[in-house]
Amino acid sequence: MPGVSLTPEKKLRIAHMLDELGVNVIEGGFARVSEGDLQALRLMAKEGLKAELCSMVRANKGDVDAALKAEVQSIHLVVPTSQLHLKYKLKKEPEEILSLSQEVVEYAKDHGLVVELSAEDGSRTDVDFLKRFFSQGISAGADRICLCDTVGVLTPPKAFDLLSQLREKFQVPLSIHCHDDFGMAVANTLEGLRAGADQAHVTVNGLGERAGNAALEEVVVGARYLLNLDSSITFNKLYEVSRLVSRLTGVNVQPNKAVVGDNAFAHESGIHVHAILSHPLTYEPLSPDVVGVKRRLVVGKHVGSAGIEALLRELGLKPTPEQLNEIFLRVKKLGDRGKTVTDSDLQAIAEAVLGLPSKRTIVLKELTVVTGDKVTPTASVKLEVDGREVVEAGIGIGPVDAAINAIKKLGASIADITLEEYHVKSITGGTDAVVEVIVKLRRGDRTVTASGARGDIVMASVEAVLSGMNTLMAEWLNKEKENS
Amino acid sequence: MPGVSLTPEKKLRIAHMLDELGVNVIEGGFARVSEGDLQALRLMAKEGLKAELCSMVRANKGDVDAALKAEVQSIHLVVPTSQLHLKYKLKKEPEEILSLSQEVVEYAKDHGLVVELSAEDGSRTDVDFLKRFFSQGISAGADRICLCDTVGVLTPPKAFDLLSQLREKFQVPLSIHCHDDFGMAVANTLEGLRAGADQAHVTVNGLGERAGNAALEEVVVGARYLLNLDSSITFNKLYEVSRLVSRLTGVNVQPNKAVVGDNAFAHESGIHVHAILSHPLTYEPLSPDVVGVKRRLVVGKHVGSAGIEALLRELGLKPTPEQLNEIFLRVKKLGDRGKTVTDSDLQAIAEAVLGLPSKRTIVLKELTVVTGDKVTPTASVKLEVDGREVVEAGIGIGPVDAAINAIKKLGASIADITLEEYHVKSITGGTDAVVEVIVKLRRGDRTVTASGARGDIVMASVEAVLSGMNTLMAEWLNKEKENS
Repeated sequence: MPGVSLTPEKKLRIAHMLDELGVNVIEGGFARVSEGDLQALRLMAKEGLKAELCSMVRANKGDVDAALKAEVQSIHLVVPTSQLHLKYKLKKEPEEILSLSQEVVEYAKDHGLVVELSAEDGSRTDVDFLKRFFSQGISAGADRICLCDTVGVLTPPKAFDLLSQLREKFQVPLSIHCHDDFGMAVANTLEGLRAGADQAHVTVNGLGERAGNAALEEVVVGARYLLNLDSSITFNKLYEVSRLVSRLTGVNVQPNKAVVGDNAFAHESGIHVHAILSHPLTYEPLSPDVVGVKRRLVVGKHVGSAGIEALLRELGLKPTPEQLNEIFLRVKKLGDRGKTVTDSDLQAIAEAVLGLPSKRTIVLKELTVVTGDKVTPTASVKLEVDGREVVEAGIGIGPVDAAINAIKKLGASIADITLEEYHVKSITGGTDAVVEVIVKLRRGDRTVTASGARGDIVMASVEAVLSGMNTLMAEWLNKEKENS
Repeated sequence: MPGVSLTPEKKLRIAHMLDELGVNVIEGGFARVSEGDLQALRLMAKEGLKAELCSMVRANKGDVDAALKAEVQSIHLVVPTSQLHLKYKLKKEPEEILSLSQEVVEYAKDHGLVVELSAEDGSRTDVDFLKRFFSQGISAGADRICLCDTVGVLTPPKAFDLLSQLREKFQVPLSIHCHDDFGMAVANTLEGLRAGADQAHVTVNGLGERAGNAALEEVVVGARYLLNLDSSITFNKLYEVSRLVSRLTGVNVQPNKAVVGDNAFAHESGIHVHAILSHPLTYEPLSPDVVGVKRRLVVGKHVGSAGIEALLRELGLKPTPEQLNEIFLRVKKLGDRGKTVTDSDLQAIAEAVLGLPSKRTIVLKELTVVTGDKVTPTASVKLEVDGREVVEAGIGIGPVDAAINAIKKLGASIADITLEEYHVKSITGGTDAVVEVIVKLRRGDRTVTASGARGDIVMASVEAVLSGMNTLMAEWLNKEKENS
């Protein structure tokens, strides 16, 4: 994928996760493309994975030699077959490519490799030529064949038809490899499987050239739940694998992505939440725990009273019907102002409506940070804790680090609170885009997560940490009161 | 979409863009859900858009009254029809819902509204009941009917079959509304259109409940280029609209998204770049300018020498074959270390290999930033440009924004350089983790990417912007020299 570079060590971590997930073949790299890819494949080969380890190769012996050096078990031999690719990319005649690929298949087989022979741009290849290509490849010893929809131009009916023809003609295992240029990689892959393909080439999160490849998580879930086709995948690891790959590649998964997106099992609309609470299948085609995710109810302007009631119950608050209605109206108003309504916003509104004292024990009174290229980033923080003012200074490697270091000192002295995790969602748009910071704080064996969202990363970080500290303090004080 | 709240003003901006884009109907909100939605619809109604303005309503007269108050032309009347929805959501018998929807259709028609009648969860509804529901609705006056695949369980062949049956039976305009829970919303929508549906319900960037709805940009492009179906959409505005919606909603488009993702027309792999330079259709099913995007060649570990040569040419550098090979090897090595290789990295490597004096025309001499909760984030920046010192101050919503604003002023005055994109990879680990900032800068019609990586987000941002400015300056100077 353009822009993604993984070190051999990171590739190895992903390979282990894929192996645990239960994939059958890991195409771990392209041995000849770089020293790093070769090294990564060798590392994986030494691990004794359950999955078959594979390298991509082109139709030349040098590529096969590199794969042999990488000690993989199989090669994915990608040979262009369309007129367009032959003429403009390879500048070879069709007959030349047939004999060349035959030669390379034989060479790879002579050296003990399993060979999967792919027709690159196969979906734009003359079908008779495509069949001749595969026939000769199989005669030369290819173990498996694969149809590549290299630029994603198949439609589901065409995918079904083409794979059916190949299925009928050939007995060796058949694969389909789809790209997502028109957003149909998953649908085309599933139609290929329905037509009798045995394998699908997929990638975690649909990563890949341009719009990417068919997404592993969508294909296996769709195959199981819509086509009743089983795979070797351990479904409830799908979410975890998706997040690991996202973290290691730095490529975000958009919230509205099927199966593993942050919103795939999130509900805000009143109509939806009401129904979900009555019967999840009304608005969930699949239970979230199947893929290792938890359902999320979201407060926001489309929320209904049932959703609010359920969320307040989790916070230990039980409003009367009138109070519930008032909370409901205030949440809507906040949403109409364009704000993302968070759990802590809901808590604040509910406390106001219920006439409860606001439980913000810790209040920011003053924060000042200085930074620069010739200045040690320095922050001073003044907090009011239960009416008492405390102040601390901190230094750090940047303004965020300095501010949080000062607060950490205060947190430790106030109530033994420590910062366990700090995470910033990727920022896109401009230097004034809203930054979302998520933190995890610990006090004893209790941890809470909290978030902050601001245009200023320093303020967002401070807000997140203080909000988490307040939640921990409120819980602590509630329990003190109960015990006394 | 969970978590997205738009103010009426922002909704109006999007409506104008959609109108310019050429959509036929704008479902601008759900008049009864909140005061803000009602207000937004009224604002849109007053604008005299070319598109038909529509409000969502449920099967009750109060919702229709709200739509009337919003002064829309049409309603999207959503009525659940599946057993599951009737039993667990509405707690009504099938016959009850038939007479209720008939009543609401008649009420809306009596008040002069165009009525599009949707069968919610229609794809999980008994087909005979579905037909009865639509028949009675049409008798009551419904102008159009719509099949909703509410939880995204259709497969393309099922979508084709179901819509074919409805097409055969009914003469009124027919719509299809698909959700993306299994990643097939676009494919199902296209199969519905192929079966004879006249309209598709779509959303920009595929936003919507859970995994979202069918993406407008993918559906119209697929319909045109794969099914030969025309729409009223002005294709070359698609990218612009996608970015506007992403900015206003705060929901990122993942780079590997079809049609409008950042990578949809980006190429890194040596094999691909080489072929693209020979004939774009080899690896592009569609020319990027069709949807208003520019092709992007990316440097990285998978790059080939043809791609590097093309990129260096743009930088005004012409290495010998031996130098090119050395640059190529160094780029791969950098990629193997897991680094995103930018234009500026390529330039630095090329200058080193070509033995050119490093052309850092712009050097940071001093940066100071002050921020806090009671301080307007303020920065001063001193740069040395070609030996001459310049200094500027900037304010912003945070320390990064302030520092970059100061530098932007200098960039504009030095050489008309503007900051086009600013992106921070997600930060995980702690407040002292290395932050990677990637920027895109423009001078005239030339853009370059650059990155900065530091523990301090302010310094990383400054480093990235200055490095990009230097690359643009070097190019400029190289070309000046050539021309003289």
